[in-house]
Amino acid sequence: MAQVRIRLTIEYDGTDFLGWQIQPDSRTVQGEIEDVLRQLCSRKVPIIGSGRTDRGVHALGQVAHTDVNDDELERVSSGLPAMLPDDIAVTAVEVAENTFHARYDAVSRLYRYRVEKEKHPLRCRYCHDLPPSRHPDTGAMKRAAQLSCGENSWKAMAKEGGSNTDWIVSVMEAEVSEDKAGWTFLIRANRFLRGMVRLWVGTLLHVGSGAEDPELIPRLLQTEDRNGAGTSVPGKGLTLMEVVYI
Amino acid sequence: MAQVRIRLTIEYDGTDFLGWQIQPDSRTVQGEIEDVLRQLCSRKVPIIGSGRTDRGVHALGQVAHTDVNDDELERVSSGLPAMLPDDIAVTAVEVAENTFHARYDAVSRLYRYRVEKEKHPLRCRYCHDLPPSRHPDTGAMKRAAQLSCGENSWKAMAKEGGSNTDWIVSVMEAEVSEDKAGWTFLIRANRFLRGMVRLWVGTLLHVGSGAEDPELIPRLLQTEDRNGAGTSVPGKGLTLMEVVYI
Repeated sequence: MAQVRIRLTIEYDGTDFLGWQIQPDSRTVQGEIEDVLRQLCSRKVPIIGSGRTDRGVHALGQVAHTDVNDDELERVSSGLPAMLPDDIAVTAVEVAENTFHARYDAVSRLYRYRVEKEKHPLRCRYCHDLPPSRHPDTGAMKRAAQLSCGENSWKAMAKEGGSNTDWIVSVMEAEVSEDKAGWTFLIRANRFLRGMVRLWVGTLLHVGSGAEDPELIPRLLQTEDRNGAGTSVPGKGLTLMEVVYI
Repeated sequence: MAQVRIRLTIEYDGTDFLGWQIQPDSRTVQGEIEDVLRQLCSRKVPIIGSGRTDRGVHALGQVAHTDVNDDELERVSSGLPAMLPDDIAVTAVEVAENTFHARYDAVSRLYRYRVEKEKHPLRCRYCHDLPPSRHPDTGAMKRAAQLSCGENSWKAMAKEGGSNTDWIVSVMEAEVSEDKAGWTFLIRANRFLRGMVRLWVGTLLHVGSGAEDPELIPRLLQTEDRNGAGTSVPGKGLTLMEVVYI
């Protein structure tokens, strides 16, 4: 019986999950998908995601891989999208190269963060919002975003704890745009450290408040000093947009 | 100390509420607003809404009224919008005529129901979705919607139970439109019976499936026969859009 490697593209509303990664007694995205795969294949079918997303963080283009027996392929392709709960969708099940690895083969990930100018209850699960008195200066944030690009240590804008010792991140794209309703922050990098996007956005908002100049960003990247960074923004405004492979 | 009647315009995401109407030991929209008013005024300040919305139903333009003492007005106007949880917003606090009544003075309410052609986890709290095999015929639904207008008994498309004995509803506007992603159902009436919009949409989808012709609607209105109606659609796709006053 031959094994087939499959690649899953996954959307989810992170509100009611403790995050991506499977954990006992908690509702997680990986856990829900593996539950359905277990029902479809009558065995444990572990999946490997491109990376974790934290509690409350959403995804439009998460990617994962797994192996199924060739006689399970048809059942998984049609059954998995149909059997998932409302807040998870598998939008593509594709046969991949046997060596494809959702985590190690990813060359970049793109995250979006959204801040609204007013409170909108029907969007409250997907955006952070700021009262008029705290609306930031877009020009300063744009400049600070530009200064975020390149290869640097992001230790100052990563959550402490965990076993990580490598803080070097290559940011390929970092931009802020303003529209009538709010601000969109986009950041593409080869990898992301824990809490990095939320601390980056918090730091940009701090710059946008006028409390610091845009050069705060290169200063943090150089000094690796966590005390200088802004306050982390809530996870609910964050969405993993896409994972790019070679 | 003079009393001032105020009119509140309210938005909410109904997902995490048991509905509008206050109930002991349950999270309701009215209950949350009255909790904040009690904190602001140090007394019970009951509010009266234009009507109830069911569990999971959203609102962009719910209206309610209440009376406050004139020395509380400033505190309520600024404090109420600021102190509500993320999933409720009071978008306007206006001084109204002393005789203004949010329920009795309303001449029409407009509801919207949304059905998507695909599952979208990031919209799953606000839409019903149908797999391709169940996509309805828009033309038949448009015709059935037209036949819904006028003054009729809606007993066949109302939930049983409760003390209601008056089933006459005047529907001023009823339409279905299709776009790339799905269908929007709009219905404006002088009043709505319990479960009415959800049964109406379910019946239109039944017509759209080809199981019945559009004349099912006038037949139901005439016969008052509940057995002929379609299946109620989930509350999460429903939003109270506006309440119109004289």
